[in-house]
Amino acid sequence: MDTLTVDLGDRSYPIYIGEKVFLDGDLLAKHIQGKQVMVVTNTTIAALYLDQLTAVLANFSVAFCVLPDGEQYKTLTVLNQIFDSLLEAKFDRTATLIALGGGVVGDMTGFAAASYQRGVNFIQIPTTVLSQVDSSVGGKTGVNHVLGKNMIGAFYQPRAVFADISVLATLPDRELSAGIAEIIKYGLIQDESFLGWLEHNMAALLALDPPAVTYAIKRSCECKAEVVAQDEREGGIRAILNFGHTFGHAIETDQGYGNWLHGEAVAAGMIVASALSEQLGWISSADLDRVIAITKAANLPTTLPANITPERFLELMSVDKKVIDGQLRLVLLNSLGEAVVTSEVDWKYVVEAIKSCQK
Amino acid sequence: MDTLTVDLGDRSYPIYIGEKVFLDGDLLAKHIQGKQVMVVTNTTIAALYLDQLTAVLANFSVAFCVLPDGEQYKTLTVLNQIFDSLLEAKFDRTATLIALGGGVVGDMTGFAAASYQRGVNFIQIPTTVLSQVDSSVGGKTGVNHVLGKNMIGAFYQPRAVFADISVLATLPDRELSAGIAEIIKYGLIQDESFLGWLEHNMAALLALDPPAVTYAIKRSCECKAEVVAQDEREGGIRAILNFGHTFGHAIETDQGYGNWLHGEAVAAGMIVASALSEQLGWISSADLDRVIAITKAANLPTTLPANITPERFLELMSVDKKVIDGQLRLVLLNSLGEAVVTSEVDWKYVVEAIKSCQK
Repeated sequence: MDTLTVDLGDRSYPIYIGEKVFLDGDLLAKHIQGKQVMVVTNTTIAALYLDQLTAVLANFSVAFCVLPDGEQYKTLTVLNQIFDSLLEAKFDRTATLIALGGGVVGDMTGFAAASYQRGVNFIQIPTTVLSQVDSSVGGKTGVNHVLGKNMIGAFYQPRAVFADISVLATLPDRELSAGIAEIIKYGLIQDESFLGWLEHNMAALLALDPPAVTYAIKRSCECKAEVVAQDEREGGIRAILNFGHTFGHAIETDQGYGNWLHGEAVAAGMIVASALSEQLGWISSADLDRVIAITKAANLPTTLPANITPERFLELMSVDKKVIDGQLRLVLLNSLGEAVVTSEVDWKYVVEAIKSCQK
Repeated sequence: MDTLTVDLGDRSYPIYIGEKVFLDGDLLAKHIQGKQVMVVTNTTIAALYLDQLTAVLANFSVAFCVLPDGEQYKTLTVLNQIFDSLLEAKFDRTATLIALGGGVVGDMTGFAAASYQRGVNFIQIPTTVLSQVDSSVGGKTGVNHVLGKNMIGAFYQPRAVFADISVLATLPDRELSAGIAEIIKYGLIQDESFLGWLEHNMAALLALDPPAVTYAIKRSCECKAEVVAQDEREGGIRAILNFGHTFGHAIETDQGYGNWLHGEAVAAGMIVASALSEQLGWISSADLDRVIAITKAANLPTTLPANITPERFLELMSVDKKVIDGQLRLVLLNSLGEAVVTSEVDWKYVVEAIKSCQK
């Protein structure tokens, strides 16, 4: 087992990474303060892991909330089911919520924990690559609104994260690749040597080789933790983590949540952002080729849906949270391994970059 | 105009108290960072003050969200109307929400501001005595759930509060008295000399004499600010502010939200808590008589509804937030002007105190 501490002063917490880490009952108990534990999960994950988790929580008063599985259920209405369960169980503000699932379960459980009685403890057991490297660090929680993704939420930190690499074996291939998109992101925006490591170890990652997976998750969490520690509430530098996301969210919104996986949309979004960086002369065409190659190697999409016009793209991007006072901020690459946030780019270049990725 | 600063480090903010304070456009503008302003109010208050407020916000891009009036609308579903309005207006994270209304509008707008894009600025213009002395200080925001009051929310501080005493002229008498219940509370729990002042000035307060009202609101906000500065997230001392509230919430839940005003239920709750303090020998029967007399002088109820059994009371109190890990904590009076939090009181005394107030 590997451990990493996310350093946020009195909100610091550990991430445990390894095989079967969430079945270590003593370690889990160390991070639960009261007696009341509510496990929030979804129907798919409940069938696979809920009994095992319940068995190691025998000393607690445990209740469950099993949500439907899918991004389309990440809504205020479904969130309210968690509150229903907590109140029906008469749980008070000493309760601990455990999120057992992927990003949707983690985001909703975190927001429920932030809001129930104005804040109770929570622990994350992320069960997908994406949630292990992305939602584990940063405290972003929330739900979607019909008019925009992640529009309602809170910054709220877990007490601990248990990233169990064994559970990834039950992950569909498409979701594994989607998670790897976020891992590639850290190489592109922060660490060129990690990008090099990924270029050499992509096959091992896709085969879920335990040392490779543990290293990739740990290095990704370290990269993200470094940024979040500098800027917990996304006032500045943290925006680089949105590399590929502004374009990606536009794809997800246009195509309907769930049709493109988040990581797939981010992958295509990173290609557009890289193409734009290349057009501006900030990275070379050889660099862009490396971005496309690593994305392809991870079995991720490298082109945009052909049926979205650039105008529709821009319209969707303008309701994205990355817009500050009407001005679109983009995250681009200054070089491989170094991202920058800019609001200086002319729209015509953005339109060109979008078109160049629709071939 | 009187000004008071609530001291919470980098979340400190001013409360402006006086006649027509919210119509000072320059002062208001000082606390708005971006260009986008969403005024959230209810149908009753909109008819009275929305045009005046809009007139002083001429330099901003202003949108509105007018909610139905009443505690029964303080729900997640109605909260979502605020998010709808924000997203339809394409407001980003530089937006400022202004709550124009009483406690319900303030609580919901504050929670919407805490949650919209994970946090935007907000300003409170409380239009009732209750919200001027209670919701102005402390950052408690949220909505009700069918199974409990204020069960979903956040601690979130406004940028500024404008407590306009002129608007109180349009307040129904019953609501004026209900607000005074919270003012009396500060005398009982923190400041016996303020209690003495209230005993001498109740007629002036009920007549809305401006210097008397300004002083009573300022002193109440000072008392609350002193407690909140010590304990922003209600880990300890802040619980004394719940004096009368555990019993009061039980009354509101049993009788249906809105049938008893919050302040009326708190007044009756303070009588029970005082009666219990007297039974335990902590205050004298003369002290209890003073509590009853000041409550009567403010035209507030001094007895409990006869149709709630003590058992029903206890059941309702056990889902209240003041329960820690199954143990009921009560706020009682050690003496007039000094409250204590205790979990040492035998249930049989609680039952007796409830019965003694149902005569």
